[in-house]
Amino acid sequence: MKHRKLCLPAVAMKHLLAVSVALNVALVLKLMHGGDEGVGWLKVEETLAGTPKRALQEMSSVVSSGGANGVQNNFESGLQELYINLDHGDPTMYESYWKQTGDKTTVVLSGWRSISYFSDTRNLCWFLEPDFANAATRLHNLVGNAATENYHIVVGTGSTQLYQAVLYAQSPPNTPEPISVVSATPFYSQYPLTTDCLKSGLHKWEGDANKFDKNRPYIELVVSPNNPDGSIRQAVVNGTGVLVHDLAYYWPQYTPISYRADNDIMLFTVSKCTGHAGTRLGWALVKDEEIAKKMTKFIEIVSIGVSKESQLRAAKILDVISDGYEKKESHEENEPFFEFGYKEIGRRWRQLRAAATGNGKLFSLPDFPTGKCNFSGHEFETQPAFAWMECKGERDDCEGFLREHKILTRGGKHFGSSSKYVRVSMIGREEHFNEFIRRLSVINSLDSPLTKD
Amino acid sequence: MKHRKLCLPAVAMKHLLAVSVALNVALVLKLMHGGDEGVGWLKVEETLAGTPKRALQEMSSVVSSGGANGVQNNFESGLQELYINLDHGDPTMYESYWKQTGDKTTVVLSGWRSISYFSDTRNLCWFLEPDFANAATRLHNLVGNAATENYHIVVGTGSTQLYQAVLYAQSPPNTPEPISVVSATPFYSQYPLTTDCLKSGLHKWEGDANKFDKNRPYIELVVSPNNPDGSIRQAVVNGTGVLVHDLAYYWPQYTPISYRADNDIMLFTVSKCTGHAGTRLGWALVKDEEIAKKMTKFIEIVSIGVSKESQLRAAKILDVISDGYEKKESHEENEPFFEFGYKEIGRRWRQLRAAATGNGKLFSLPDFPTGKCNFSGHEFETQPAFAWMECKGERDDCEGFLREHKILTRGGKHFGSSSKYVRVSMIGREEHFNEFIRRLSVINSLDSPLTKD
Repeated sequence: MKHRKLCLPAVAMKHLLAVSVALNVALVLKLMHGGDEGVGWLKVEETLAGTPKRALQEMSSVVSSGGANGVQNNFESGLQELYINLDHGDPTMYESYWKQTGDKTTVVLSGWRSISYFSDTRNLCWFLEPDFANAATRLHNLVGNAATENYHIVVGTGSTQLYQAVLYAQSPPNTPEPISVVSATPFYSQYPLTTDCLKSGLHKWEGDANKFDKNRPYIELVVSPNNPDGSIRQAVVNGTGVLVHDLAYYWPQYTPISYRADNDIMLFTVSKCTGHAGTRLGWALVKDEEIAKKMTKFIEIVSIGVSKESQLRAAKILDVISDGYEKKESHEENEPFFEFGYKEIGRRWRQLRAAATGNGKLFSLPDFPTGKCNFSGHEFETQPAFAWMECKGERDDCEGFLREHKILTRGGKHFGSSSKYVRVSMIGREEHFNEFIRRLSVINSLDSPLTKD
Repeated sequence: MKHRKLCLPAVAMKHLLAVSVALNVALVLKLMHGGDEGVGWLKVEETLAGTPKRALQEMSSVVSSGGANGVQNNFESGLQELYINLDHGDPTMYESYWKQTGDKTTVVLSGWRSISYFSDTRNLCWFLEPDFANAATRLHNLVGNAATENYHIVVGTGSTQLYQAVLYAQSPPNTPEPISVVSATPFYSQYPLTTDCLKSGLHKWEGDANKFDKNRPYIELVVSPNNPDGSIRQAVVNGTGVLVHDLAYYWPQYTPISYRADNDIMLFTVSKCTGHAGTRLGWALVKDEEIAKKMTKFIEIVSIGVSKESQLRAAKILDVISDGYEKKESHEENEPFFEFGYKEIGRRWRQLRAAATGNGKLFSLPDFPTGKCNFSGHEFETQPAFAWMECKGERDDCEGFLREHKILTRGGKHFGSSSKYVRVSMIGREEHFNEFIRRLSVINSLDSPLTKD
């Protein structure tokens, strides 16, 4: 009976796969600095070979949701084959939340607004909009995830630019050797690329912090919860180097807020906090004034400040989140923001564990500790923005295996780890995520020993 | 008679100077990578010593206009001394134009808009908003200053980021020596800082293109009209290196549009075209697809794209400019944008020449060729966004001399030139410019041989 129950849906699903059901179109962008180090933001254009046009037309209503992602799916000409792209952490999951907030989150910018380079010349970070600084401080104080008193805020074009600003600020200018930059594996795949793209004489990517010889000067990156594997982290090098805490995911939809972080340098980004990735806005909380000044100087040198439009919009969004807790009106029907994220990501993790892991299934996922969130009161396991999924058994190329099934993920080697692992985004559009879960079930059914007799 | 006419206003003006009349507050930001190479964006905080409070109060109505610049002038506490800051090319002159356009230029952004990293995955530059690409193309085609057909558009966080993207794209990745980057003196002061800030192994600033040994690989930057001196330029190295044309100022308010530029790589920025410096948005027109891809890759690595908010707002602004010419309604009273800029900058240049140069005066200014503008039909001399002013006679430190008179400018050495020169912004607020002209008259009167008897 069990055999039969597994087989029947599997056959149906095989048929579905055969007509290349997919939700997201991805175009080829040849990796320009290829090899294992390159992480292409766009992947895989393939000619649509042998896919019945009728099947594509049947899918068009679903696929059109991909169009909102800026992707136009060329069904009529049938030139492109469709993939689910879970390679990036594109946080489109949040779009539906912001849609229901209506005018409250709408920003209106007059043509004469923010003409100048300068936001506030009294501030060390002279291109920081006061509204944004206030909104970020308010949200930290509300959530309790980071101390703000006696910190300087430096704003950046995403936390990616702030990361470079920290490297610049913390690299000794006149040493013969570049300072080593390390992070424990698996580490964020962007770090090595960004650190070494200009072959800087100031700093150099040295990979796994666990293997680092601590007798040289170094900068250690501590990402917690970690990208890609969601682990809660502390520094691993037992030395006196510089520590940079990337706390992009230390928000209550992803992990229990168990302490108020007060590290010397803490990086945040609206991309993973509110979902506004297109805004390209991050901020750093920095204890030391001289470091904050040097970071500001770097951003002056490479981009003469940061978009005022992004700052003004992010200020509004952050304030609406805070208002949702502090000024909630009685007739208010909208769920507070972090509650939405907490529930949605929790649901996705339960679906993923059910579909991907367990007896006879091909994948495994990490376990996380349970904790009580000081902010929400919920007791829950960390539920990261990415799943760090392992192909069990003999299969070595997990990314390639999933790609055969038209699921795009980022392979473990990009993170200094094994290719048995992939990183899978958990924060994309709901339709895409559901389709991903469906395909995983198909894969498990197809390859299950129970279906092979 | 001439003596008397010069002397009387000079005495009055001396008094004005003595109470430290000034319009713009500047705060100290110690140059972190000091010496001659450092260009601080904020300058000079001084204790307000001996300035009568009444005089300050009399000035408060004027000074409040400085407040719109994000600068709060602390008159009540009298802690800060006031300077006119003409060091930066902060294009606040344009604010008054955009104010009168009213709602036409207002941008409304809903909270759910542009969540994704991606703008258009079909485009080589996947983070380029189609609306912005269309608006930039439309404006170039209207003005006729640059060819757009068969060009790729790459958008950047200001042209400063695009400059770095070009260096990255054009530097051979595997050569032992970094490629040389050169530009004829006087060159834009930001170039050496940005080129060398990370001690890149890919590229290295080599200074004056006129002194360059052309037998090595090189990238030559051709800025036309040039920053700081407004000259119309062509490449000077007679070799086969890479040419990058920075055409930030090739717009009809600054210089006659005499040809449609069609160079391989052309850089533009909204900052100097429309005045929206705070938007931090530039664009490159690039002929070669591979170069455009590599530039896109660089921007992916260092900032994962460019603010969507900036792009959407800039698209609106550029379209309103084009509409002002193409869809002008009969009841329309607003002057078209470039006409406003042309008249205002022209007026300022006439004022500056009258106040600063001529018989017995202390300064000289460059002359420019006259030409007919294909776009506006006006026949006029180039009227650059900056004045490249020389202190005549024995005076060697022109920046220091003007600073004594509480006028902040950028000294010639930052541009690879002599400290007898300074660069002065011509595109700041009108009140500041007028006060600058007044002070120049005072300086000329004070130091005129006719006042010394």
